[in-house]
Amino acid sequence: MQQTLKKPLILITNDDGDAARGIAVLTQIMMQLGDVVVMAPDGPRSGQSNAITVSEPLRYRKIEEREGLVRYICTGTPTDCVKLALHDILDRKPDLLVSGINHGSNAAINVIYSGTMGAVLEGCENGVTSIGFSINDHTANADFSVFEPYILKIAQETMKNGLPYGICLNVNAPADTIKGVKIARQCRGNWTEEYEKRLDPQGRNYFWLTGYFKNHEPESKDTDEWALANKYISIVPTKIDLTDFDSLKTLQNWDLTD
Amino acid sequence: MQQTLKKPLILITNDDGDAARGIAVLTQIMMQLGDVVVMAPDGPRSGQSNAITVSEPLRYRKIEEREGLVRYICTGTPTDCVKLALHDILDRKPDLLVSGINHGSNAAINVIYSGTMGAVLEGCENGVTSIGFSINDHTANADFSVFEPYILKIAQETMKNGLPYGICLNVNAPADTIKGVKIARQCRGNWTEEYEKRLDPQGRNYFWLTGYFKNHEPESKDTDEWALANKYISIVPTKIDLTDFDSLKTLQNWDLTD
Repeated sequence: MQQTLKKPLILITNDDGDAARGIAVLTQIMMQLGDVVVMAPDGPRSGQSNAITVSEPLRYRKIEEREGLVRYICTGTPTDCVKLALHDILDRKPDLLVSGINHGSNAAINVIYSGTMGAVLEGCENGVTSIGFSINDHTANADFSVFEPYILKIAQETMKNGLPYGICLNVNAPADTIKGVKIARQCRGNWTEEYEKRLDPQGRNYFWLTGYFKNHEPESKDTDEWALANKYISIVPTKIDLTDFDSLKTLQNWDLTD
Repeated sequence: MQQTLKKPLILITNDDGDAARGIAVLTQIMMQLGDVVVMAPDGPRSGQSNAITVSEPLRYRKIEEREGLVRYICTGTPTDCVKLALHDILDRKPDLLVSGINHGSNAAINVIYSGTMGAVLEGCENGVTSIGFSINDHTANADFSVFEPYILKIAQETMKNGLPYGICLNVNAPADTIKGVKIARQCRGNWTEEYEKRLDPQGRNYFWLTGYFKNHEPESKDTDEWALANKYISIVPTKIDLTDFDSLKTLQNWDLTD
Protein backbone atom coordinates (compact mmCIF):
# COMPACT_ATOMS: atom_id res chain seq x y z
CA MET A 1 0.00 0.00 0.00
CA GLN A 2 1.42 3.32 -1.02
CA GLN A 3 1.52 6.03 1.56
CA THR A 4 0.20 9.47 0.64
CA LEU A 5 2.85 12.12 1.11
CA LYS A 6 1.16 15.18 2.50
CA LYS A 7 2.40 18.45 1.13
CA PRO A 8 3.37 21.09 3.68
CA LEU A 9 0.41 23.23 4.79
CA ILE A 10 1.16 26.95 4.66
CA LEU A 11 -1.00 29.67 6.23
CA ILE A 12 -0.65 33.20 4.83
CA THR A 13 -1.89 36.51 6.15
CA ASN A 14 -0.87 40.17 6.09
CA ASP A 15 -1.91 43.60 7.35
CA ASP A 16 -2.34 45.40 4.01
CA GLY A 17 -5.46 43.37 3.27
CA ASP A 18 -6.29 40.67 0.73
CA ALA A 19 -6.18 43.07 -2.24
CA ALA A 20 -2.53 44.08 -1.71
CA ARG A 21 0.13 43.07 -4.25
CA GLY A 22 2.43 41.82 -1.48
CA ILE A 23 0.16 38.98 -0.39
CA ALA A 24 -0.51 37.96 -3.99
CA VAL A 25 3.23 37.66 -4.64
CA LEU A 26 3.79 35.80 -1.36
CA THR A 27 0.98 33.38 -2.24
CA GLN A 28 2.57 32.60 -5.63
CA ILE A 29 5.91 31.90 -3.97
CA MET A 30 4.45 29.69 -1.24
CA MET A 31 2.45 27.59 -3.73
CA GLN A 32 5.85 26.23 -4.85
CA LEU A 33 6.33 24.84 -1.33
CA GLY A 34 2.98 23.40 -0.33
CA ASP A 35 -0.78 23.70 -0.01
CA VAL A 36 -1.67 27.26 0.77
CA VAL A 37 -4.49 28.71 2.86
CA VAL A 38 -4.79 32.50 2.84
CA MET A 39 -6.78 34.20 5.61
CA ALA A 40 -6.33 37.94 5.13
CA PRO A 41 -8.05 41.01 6.52
CA ASP A 42 -10.76 42.31 4.18
CA GLY A 43 -9.01 45.70 4.00
CA PRO A 44 -5.92 47.53 5.27
CA ARG A 45 -4.99 46.91 8.92
CA SER A 46 -1.60 48.61 9.08
CA GLY A 47 -0.29 49.50 12.53
CA GLN A 48 -2.62 47.01 14.21
CA SER A 49 0.18 45.36 16.17
CA ASN A 50 -1.19 42.34 18.07
CA ALA A 51 -4.63 43.92 18.42
CA ILE A 52 -7.48 41.47 18.92
CA THR A 53 -11.17 42.11 18.41
CA VAL A 54 -12.92 41.68 21.75
CA SER A 55 -16.04 43.84 21.67
CA GLU A 56 -17.57 42.82 18.38
CA PRO A 57 -17.89 39.47 16.62
CA LEU A 58 -15.79 38.33 13.66
CA ARG A 59 -16.83 36.90 10.31
CA TYR A 60 -14.89 35.30 7.49
CA ARG A 61 -15.75 33.89 4.08
CA LYS A 62 -14.12 31.95 1.28
CA ILE A 63 -13.33 34.00 -1.83
CA GLU A 64 -11.37 31.49 -3.96
CA GLU A 65 -10.64 27.78 -4.10
CA ARG A 66 -8.44 26.01 -6.62
CA GLU A 67 -5.75 23.30 -6.73
CA GLY A 68 -3.32 23.97 -3.90
CA LEU A 69 -4.94 27.22 -2.76
CA VAL A 70 -7.90 28.36 -0.69
CA ARG A 71 -8.37 32.04 0.07
CA TYR A 72 -10.51 33.60 2.81
CA ILE A 73 -11.09 37.16 3.97
CA CYS A 74 -11.88 38.14 7.53
CA THR A 75 -13.35 41.20 9.21
CA GLY A 76 -10.69 41.27 11.93
CA THR A 77 -7.07 42.21 12.53
CA PRO A 78 -4.08 40.16 11.32
CA THR A 79 -3.89 38.53 14.76
CA ASP A 80 -7.61 37.69 14.57
CA CYS A 81 -6.99 36.13 11.13
CA VAL A 82 -4.38 33.76 12.55
CA LYS A 83 -6.42 32.86 15.64
CA LEU A 84 -9.58 32.20 13.64
CA ALA A 85 -7.80 30.26 10.87
CA LEU A 86 -6.13 27.99 13.43
CA HIS A 87 -9.41 27.54 15.30
CA ASP A 88 -12.01 27.17 12.57
CA ILE A 89 -10.41 26.62 9.13
CA LEU A 90 -7.34 24.40 9.37
CA ASP A 91 -7.73 20.77 10.34
CA ARG A 92 -4.10 20.54 11.46
CA LYS A 93 -1.36 22.87 12.63
CA PRO A 94 0.24 24.48 9.57
CA ASP A 95 3.89 23.68 8.83
CA LEU A 96 4.56 27.33 8.20
CA LEU A 97 2.91 30.72 8.66
CA VAL A 98 4.08 33.62 6.52
CA SER A 99 2.82 37.18 6.77
CA GLY A 100 3.27 39.91 4.19
CA ILE A 101 4.84 40.83 1.95
CA ASN A 102 4.34 44.08 3.82
CA HIS A 103 4.48 47.28 1.81
CA GLY A 104 6.86 49.14 4.15
CA SER A 105 9.70 48.21 6.50
CA ASN A 106 9.03 46.51 9.82
CA ALA A 107 12.61 46.80 10.99
CA ALA A 108 13.69 48.25 14.35
CA ILE A 109 10.91 49.37 16.72
CA ASN A 110 8.33 49.04 13.93
CA VAL A 111 8.07 45.40 14.93
CA ILE A 112 5.90 46.40 17.91
CA TYR A 113 3.37 48.36 15.80
CA SER A 114 3.26 46.07 12.81
CA GLY A 115 0.13 44.05 12.09
CA THR A 116 2.26 41.88 9.81
CA MET A 117 4.51 40.96 12.73
CA GLY A 118 1.53 40.76 15.10
CA ALA A 119 0.27 37.83 13.02
CA VAL A 120 3.75 36.28 13.13
CA LEU A 121 3.97 36.55 16.93
CA GLU A 122 0.51 34.97 17.11
CA GLY A 123 1.57 32.01 15.00
CA CYS A 124 4.71 31.69 17.10
CA GLU A 125 2.72 31.66 20.35
CA ASN A 126 0.71 28.77 18.92
CA GLY A 127 3.82 26.76 18.09
CA VAL A 128 3.73 27.41 14.34
CA THR A 129 6.99 28.18 12.50
CA SER A 130 6.33 31.80 11.51
CA ILE A 131 8.02 34.42 9.33
CA GLY A 132 7.14 38.03 8.48
CA PHE A 133 8.31 39.45 5.14
CA SER A 134 8.41 43.21 4.48
CA ILE A 135 9.97 45.45 1.87
CA ASN A 136 11.21 48.97 2.48
CA ASP A 137 8.76 50.48 -0.03
CA HIS A 138 5.34 51.79 1.00
CA THR A 139 3.93 52.16 -2.50
CA ALA A 140 1.03 49.99 -3.63
CA ASN A 141 2.91 48.77 -6.71
CA ALA A 142 6.20 47.98 -4.92
CA ASP A 143 8.51 45.75 -6.98
CA PHE A 144 9.16 42.47 -5.14
CA SER A 145 11.05 40.72 -7.95
CA VAL A 146 14.59 40.84 -6.50
CA PHE A 147 13.24 39.83 -3.08
CA GLU A 148 11.26 36.83 -4.37
CA PRO A 149 14.06 34.21 -4.71
CA TYR A 150 15.25 35.12 -1.19
CA ILE A 151 11.76 34.66 0.23
CA LEU A 152 11.62 31.18 -1.29
CA LYS A 153 15.04 30.29 0.10
CA ILE A 154 14.37 31.72 3.56
CA ALA A 155 11.06 29.83 3.81
CA GLN A 156 12.71 26.58 2.68
CA GLU A 157 15.61 26.92 5.12
CA THR A 158 13.24 27.79 7.94
CA MET A 159 11.05 24.75 7.30
CA LYS A 160 14.16 22.56 7.02
CA ASN A 161 15.84 23.82 10.20
CA GLY A 162 12.78 24.74 12.26
CA LEU A 163 12.73 27.36 14.99
CA PRO A 164 12.65 26.90 18.79
CA TYR A 165 9.29 27.53 20.49
CA GLY A 166 8.77 31.24 21.03
CA ILE A 167 11.11 32.37 18.24
CA CYS A 168 9.97 33.69 14.86
CA LEU A 169 11.65 35.66 12.06
CA ASN A 170 11.29 39.30 11.05
CA VAL A 171 12.61 39.60 7.48
CA ASN A 172 13.00 43.01 5.83
CA ALA A 173 14.32 43.78 2.37
CA PRO A 174 15.67 46.97 0.79
CA ALA A 175 13.59 48.38 -2.04
CA ASP A 176 15.73 47.75 -5.15
CA THR A 177 19.15 46.17 -5.08
CA ILE A 178 19.83 43.25 -2.75
CA LYS A 179 23.46 42.41 -1.99
CA GLY A 180 22.71 39.43 0.27
CA VAL A 181 21.34 38.49 3.67
CA LYS A 182 22.42 39.65 7.15
CA ILE A 183 21.34 38.04 10.41
CA ALA A 184 20.75 41.13 12.54
CA ARG A 185 19.41 42.44 15.81
CA GLN A 186 16.59 44.95 16.24
CA CYS A 187 18.04 48.47 15.94
CA ARG A 188 17.47 50.93 18.77
CA GLY A 189 15.50 54.00 17.90
CA ASN A 190 12.24 55.84 18.26
CA TRP A 191 9.70 57.74 16.21
CA THR A 192 9.75 61.51 16.59
CA GLU A 193 7.83 64.66 15.50
CA GLU A 194 4.92 62.41 15.01
CA TYR A 195 1.84 64.52 14.34
CA GLU A 196 0.63 67.00 11.81
CA LYS A 197 -1.86 69.35 13.48
CA ARG A 198 -4.70 70.66 11.30
CA LEU A 199 -7.82 72.76 11.76
CA ASP A 200 -11.18 71.41 10.63
CA PRO A 201 -13.75 73.77 9.04
CA GLN A 202 -15.23 74.30 12.55
CA GLY A 203 -11.86 75.59 13.79
CA ARG A 204 -11.08 72.55 15.93
CA ASN A 205 -7.74 70.74 15.97
CA TYR A 206 -7.19 67.27 14.63
CA PHE A 207 -3.99 65.27 14.29
CA TRP A 208 -2.56 63.01 11.59
CA LEU A 209 0.12 60.50 12.54
CA THR A 210 3.35 61.20 10.65
CA GLY A 211 6.98 61.71 11.82
CA TYR A 212 10.21 59.87 11.18
CA PHE A 213 12.31 57.14 12.73
CA LYS A 214 15.35 58.28 14.68
CA ASN A 215 18.10 55.66 14.66
CA HIS A 216 19.87 55.67 18.06
CA GLU A 217 22.86 53.73 16.77
CA PRO A 218 23.54 54.53 13.12
CA GLU A 219 27.17 53.37 13.44
CA SER A 220 26.37 49.83 14.60
CA LYS A 221 26.79 47.33 11.79
CA ASP A 222 24.89 44.44 13.35
CA THR A 223 21.41 46.01 13.24
CA ASP A 224 18.49 45.52 10.87
CA GLU A 225 18.53 49.23 9.98
CA TRP A 226 22.20 49.03 8.99
CA ALA A 227 21.51 46.00 6.81
CA LEU A 228 18.66 47.75 4.99
CA ALA A 229 20.60 50.99 4.55
CA ASN A 230 23.44 48.97 3.03
CA LYS A 231 21.22 47.01 0.65
CA TYR A 232 21.06 43.75 2.58
CA ILE A 233 18.02 41.78 3.64
CA SER A 234 17.85 41.70 7.45
CA ILE A 235 16.64 38.66 9.37
CA VAL A 236 15.98 39.30 13.07
CA PRO A 237 15.20 36.27 15.25
CA THR A 238 12.31 37.64 17.30
CA LYS A 239 10.97 36.52 20.69
CA ILE A 240 7.50 36.47 22.19
CA ASP A 241 9.04 36.45 25.68
CA LEU A 242 9.58 40.14 26.49
CA THR A 243 11.28 39.49 29.85
CA ASP A 244 14.51 41.39 30.34
CA PHE A 245 16.47 38.68 32.12
CA ASP A 246 19.36 41.07 32.84
CA SER A 247 17.12 43.16 35.09
CA LEU A 248 15.74 40.31 37.21
CA LYS A 249 18.65 40.47 39.67
CA THR A 250 18.74 44.27 39.88
CA LEU A 251 15.06 44.44 40.77
CA GLN A 252 15.54 41.90 43.57
CA ASN A 253 17.50 44.60 45.41
CA TRP A 254 14.67 47.13 45.35
CA ASP A 255 12.68 47.74 48.53
CA LEU A 256 9.20 46.65 47.52
CA THR A 257 7.56 45.89 50.83
CA ASP A 258 4.42 47.97 51.17
CA MET B 1 16.18 84.06 45.47
CA GLN B 2 14.41 80.85 46.24
CA GLN B 3 14.47 78.13 43.63
CA THR B 4 11.18 76.55 42.68
CA LEU B 5 11.28 72.82 43.20
CA LYS B 6 9.42 71.22 40.34
CA LYS B 7 7.24 68.32 41.32
CA PRO B 8 7.62 65.13 39.30
CA LEU B 9 5.42 65.11 36.18
CA ILE B 10 3.42 61.92 35.81
CA LEU B 11 1.54 60.84 32.68
CA ILE B 12 -1.31 58.36 33.10
CA THR B 13 -3.23 56.33 30.54
CA ASN B 14 -5.03 52.99 30.31
CA ASP B 15 -6.96 50.80 27.90
CA ASP B 16 -10.26 50.53 29.75
CA GLY B 17 -11.04 54.18 28.98
CA ASP B 18 -11.28 57.30 31.10
CA ALA B 19 -14.47 56.17 32.86
CA ALA B 20 -12.92 53.02 34.35
CA ARG B 21 -12.43 52.71 38.13
CA GLY B 22 -8.84 51.56 37.67
CA ILE B 23 -7.58 54.81 36.19
CA ALA B 24 -9.41 56.87 38.81
CA VAL B 25 -7.70 54.92 41.59
CA LEU B 26 -4.31 55.16 39.84
CA THR B 27 -4.76 58.92 39.46
CA GLN B 28 -5.47 59.33 43.20
CA ILE B 29 -2.33 57.38 44.08
CA MET B 30 -0.10 59.28 41.64
CA MET B 31 -1.29 62.67 42.89
CA GLN B 32 0.64 61.84 46.07
CA LEU B 33 3.83 61.72 44.00
CA GLY B 34 3.61 64.63 41.58
CA ASP B 35 1.69 66.66 39.04
CA VAL B 36 -0.54 64.38 37.07
CA VAL B 37 -1.65 64.55 33.44
CA VAL B 38 -4.18 61.93 32.37
CA MET B 39 -4.63 61.23 28.64
CA ALA B 40 -7.01 58.31 28.37
CA PRO B 41 -8.97 56.75 25.53
CA ASP B 42 -12.56 58.03 25.42
CA GLY B 43 -13.88 54.47 25.75
CA PRO B 44 -12.68 50.89 26.16
CA ARG B 45 -9.66 49.86 24.04
CA SER B 46 -8.89 46.46 25.51
CA GLY B 47 -6.73 44.16 23.41
CA GLN B 48 -5.39 47.05 21.35
CA SER B 49 -1.77 46.05 21.89
CA ASN B 50 0.54 48.68 20.35
CA ALA B 51 -2.01 49.57 17.67
CA ILE B 52 -1.65 53.06 16.20
CA THR B 53 -4.26 54.99 14.26
CA VAL B 54 -2.91 55.59 10.76
CA SER B 55 -5.89 55.94 8.44
CA GLU B 56 -7.99 58.47 10.34
CA PRO B 57 -7.09 61.57 12.32
CA LEU B 58 -7.07 61.83 16.10
CA ARG B 59 -8.67 64.35 18.42
CA TYR B 60 -8.35 65.00 22.13
CA ARG B 61 -9.94 67.41 24.60
CA LYS B 62 -9.54 68.54 28.20
CA ILE B 63 -12.25 67.28 30.54
CA GLU B 64 -10.93 68.43 33.94
CA GLU B 65 -8.32 70.77 35.40
CA ARG B 66 -7.59 71.34 39.07
CA GLU B 67 -4.59 71.73 41.39
CA GLY B 68 -2.07 69.00 40.47
CA LEU B 69 -4.28 67.32 37.86
CA VAL B 70 -5.28 67.82 34.23
CA ARG B 71 -7.37 65.18 32.46
CA TYR B 72 -7.82 64.69 28.73
CA ILE B 73 -9.65 62.13 26.64
CA CYS B 74 -8.55 61.02 23.19
CA THR B 75 -10.23 59.25 20.29
CA GLY B 76 -7.29 56.89 19.75
CA THR B 77 -5.68 53.80 21.17
CA PRO B 78 -3.59 53.74 24.37
CA THR B 79 -0.43 54.01 22.24
CA ASP B 80 -1.93 56.99 20.40
CA CYS B 81 -2.67 58.60 23.78
CA VAL B 82 0.97 58.39 24.81
CA LYS B 83 2.32 59.60 21.46
CA LEU B 84 -0.07 62.53 21.29
CA ALA B 85 0.41 63.54 24.94
CA LEU B 86 4.20 63.55 24.51
CA HIS B 87 3.89 65.48 21.26
CA ASP B 88 1.17 68.04 21.92
CA ILE B 89 0.31 68.28 25.62
CA LEU B 90 3.40 67.96 27.79
CA ASP B 91 6.05 70.67 27.71
CA ARG B 92 8.72 68.32 29.03
CA LYS B 93 9.37 64.60 29.17
CA PRO B 94 7.39 63.13 32.09
CA ASP B 95 9.30 61.64 35.01
CA LEU B 96 7.00 58.65 35.01
CA LEU B 97 4.33 57.06 32.85
CA VAL B 98 1.86 54.69 34.49
CA SER B 99 -0.85 52.76 32.67
CA GLY B 100 -3.85 51.06 34.26
CA ILE B 101 -4.94 49.94 36.69
CA ASN B 102 -6.13 47.41 34.16
CA HIS B 103 -9.22 45.43 35.02
CA GLY B 104 -7.79 41.99 34.16
CA SER B 105 -4.38 40.34 34.26
CA ASN B 106 -1.70 41.22 31.73
CA ALA B 107 0.65 38.49 32.89
CA ALA B 108 2.28 35.93 30.58
CA ILE B 109 1.57 36.24 26.84
CA ASN B 110 -1.20 38.78 27.54
CA VAL B 111 1.54 41.41 27.49
CA ILE B 112 1.54 41.30 23.68
CA TYR B 113 -2.22 41.92 23.34
CA SER B 114 -2.60 44.43 26.13
CA GLY B 115 -3.38 48.05 25.33
CA THR B 116 -2.28 48.89 28.86
CA MET B 117 1.16 47.46 28.17
CA GLY B 118 1.17 48.89 24.62
CA ALA B 119 1.12 52.35 26.21
CA VAL B 120 3.93 51.32 28.54
CA LEU B 121 6.12 50.05 25.68
CA GLU B 122 5.42 53.34 23.88
CA GLY B 123 6.57 55.40 26.86
CA CYS B 124 9.63 53.17 27.18
CA GLU B 125 10.56 53.64 23.50
CA ASN B 126 10.48 57.38 24.14
CA GLY B 127 12.84 57.15 27.09
CA VAL B 128 10.16 57.61 29.76
CA THR B 129 10.28 55.45 32.92
CA SER B 130 7.10 53.42 32.41
CA ILE B 131 5.03 50.95 34.45
CA GLY B 132 1.85 49.01 33.71
CA PHE B 133 -0.41 48.05 36.61
CA SER B 134 -3.08 45.36 36.27
CA ILE B 135 -5.23 43.35 38.66
CA ASN B 136 -6.43 39.82 38.05
CA ASP B 137 -10.12 40.83 38.20
CA HIS B 138 -12.08 41.72 35.06
CA THR B 139 -15.09 43.17 36.84
CA ALA B 140 -15.87 46.87 36.51
CA ASN B 141 -15.99 47.34 40.29
CA ALA B 142 -12.76 45.45 41.05
CA ASP B 143 -11.41 46.18 44.54
CA PHE B 144 -7.94 47.75 44.30
CA SER B 145 -7.54 48.57 48.01
CA VAL B 146 -4.95 45.93 48.95
CA PHE B 147 -3.00 46.69 45.77
CA GLU B 148 -2.90 50.47 46.34
CA PRO B 149 -0.02 50.75 48.86
CA TYR B 150 2.10 48.49 46.66
CA ILE B 151 1.43 50.65 43.62
CA LEU B 152 2.63 53.70 45.53
CA LYS B 153 5.76 51.91 46.70
CA ILE B 154 6.58 50.41 43.30
CA ALA B 155 6.19 53.81 41.61
CA GLN B 156 8.39 55.47 44.25
CA GLU B 157 11.12 52.84 44.00
CA THR B 158 11.02 52.97 40.21
CA MET B 159 11.41 56.76 40.15
CA LYS B 160 14.21 56.52 42.73
CA ASN B 161 16.18 53.77 40.97
CA GLY B 162 15.26 54.47 37.36
CA LEU B 163 15.19 51.89 34.59
CA PRO B 164 17.67 51.38 31.73
CA TYR B 165 16.57 52.58 28.29
CA GLY B 166 14.31 50.02 26.66
CA ILE B 167 13.16 48.39 29.91
CA CYS B 168 9.75 48.93 31.52
CA LEU B 169 7.75 47.11 34.18
CA ASN B 170 4.70 44.86 33.86
CA VAL B 171 3.08 44.69 37.32
CA ASN B 172 0.18 42.32 37.98
CA ALA B 173 -1.67 41.77 41.25
CA PRO B 174 -3.89 38.94 42.49
CA ALA B 175 -7.52 39.86 43.11
CA ASP B 176 -7.87 39.74 46.91
CA THR B 177 -5.08 38.77 49.26
CA ILE B 178 -1.53 39.97 48.57
CA LYS B 179 1.31 38.14 50.34
CA GLY B 180 4.09 40.27 48.88
CA VAL B 181 5.99 41.01 45.66
CA LYS B 182 7.88 38.62 43.34
CA ILE B 183 10.25 39.72 40.60
CA ALA B 184 9.28 37.27 37.87
CA ARG B 185 9.70 36.31 34.24
CA GLN B 186 6.94 36.12 31.63
CA CYS B 187 5.33 32.68 31.86
CA ARG B 188 5.19 30.52 28.74
CA GLY B 189 1.74 29.67 27.49
CA ASN B 190 -0.86 30.25 24.84
CA TRP B 191 -4.56 30.93 24.46
CA THR B 192 -6.67 28.00 23.30
CA GLU B 193 -10.26 27.13 22.23
CA GLU B 194 -10.63 30.73 21.42
CA TYR B 195 -13.94 31.22 19.62
CA GLU B 196 -17.61 30.75 20.25
CA LYS B 197 -19.36 30.12 16.94
CA ARG B 198 -22.91 31.46 16.60
CA LEU B 199 -25.55 31.73 13.90
CA ASP B 200 -27.09 35.09 13.10
CA PRO B 201 -30.82 35.34 12.21
CA GLN B 202 -29.85 34.99 8.51
CA GLY B 203 -28.17 31.65 9.23
CA ARG B 204 -24.62 32.91 8.81
CA ASN B 205 -21.76 32.16 11.19
CA TYR B 206 -20.11 34.73 13.40
CA PHE B 207 -17.44 34.31 16.04
CA TRP B 208 -16.86 35.75 19.50
CA LEU B 209 -13.37 35.69 20.97
CA THR B 210 -13.27 33.63 24.16
CA GLY B 211 -11.03 30.72 25.26
CA TYR B 212 -8.60 30.22 28.12
CA PHE B 213 -4.90 30.58 28.84
CA LYS B 214 -2.92 27.35 28.86
CA ASN B 215 0.12 27.61 31.13
CA HIS B 216 3.04 25.67 29.56
CA GLU B 217 5.02 25.57 32.77
CA PRO B 218 2.69 25.41 35.80
CA GLU B 219 5.50 23.93 37.96
CA SER B 220 7.97 26.79 37.45
CA LYS B 221 8.08 29.07 40.49
CA ASP B 222 9.83 32.03 38.86
CA THR B 223 6.99 33.06 36.52
CA ASP B 224 4.39 35.80 36.76
CA GLU B 225 1.59 33.24 36.55
CA TRP B 226 3.01 31.35 39.52
CA ALA B 227 3.27 34.56 41.54
CA LEU B 228 -0.36 35.48 40.83
CA ALA B 229 -1.65 31.96 41.53
CA ASN B 230 0.17 32.06 44.86
CA LYS B 231 -1.16 35.49 45.87
CA TYR B 232 1.93 37.54 45.07
CA ILE B 233 2.23 40.64 42.94
CA SER B 234 4.44 39.87 39.92
CA ILE B 235 6.85 42.43 38.48
CA VAL B 236 8.28 41.47 35.09
CA PRO B 237 11.06 43.69 33.67
CA THR B 238 9.93 43.95 30.07
CA LYS B 239 11.96 44.80 26.91
CA ILE B 240 11.08 46.63 23.75
CA ASP B 241 13.93 44.84 21.98
CA LEU B 242 12.40 41.57 20.76
CA THR B 243 15.66 40.18 19.34
CA ASP B 244 16.43 36.63 20.42
CA PHE B 245 20.17 36.99 20.86
CA ASP B 246 20.59 33.24 21.43
CA SER B 247 19.45 32.53 17.86
CA LEU B 248 21.77 35.00 16.11
CA LYS B 249 24.61 32.46 15.90
CA THR B 250 22.42 29.53 14.86
CA LEU B 251 20.96 31.48 11.97
CA GLN B 252 24.44 32.39 10.72
CA ASN B 253 24.84 28.71 9.80
CA TRP B 254 21.79 28.61 7.56
CA ASP B 255 22.26 28.63 3.80
CA LEU B 256 20.55 31.85 2.78
CA THR B 257 22.13 32.63 -0.55
CA ASP B 258 19.40 32.92 -3.17
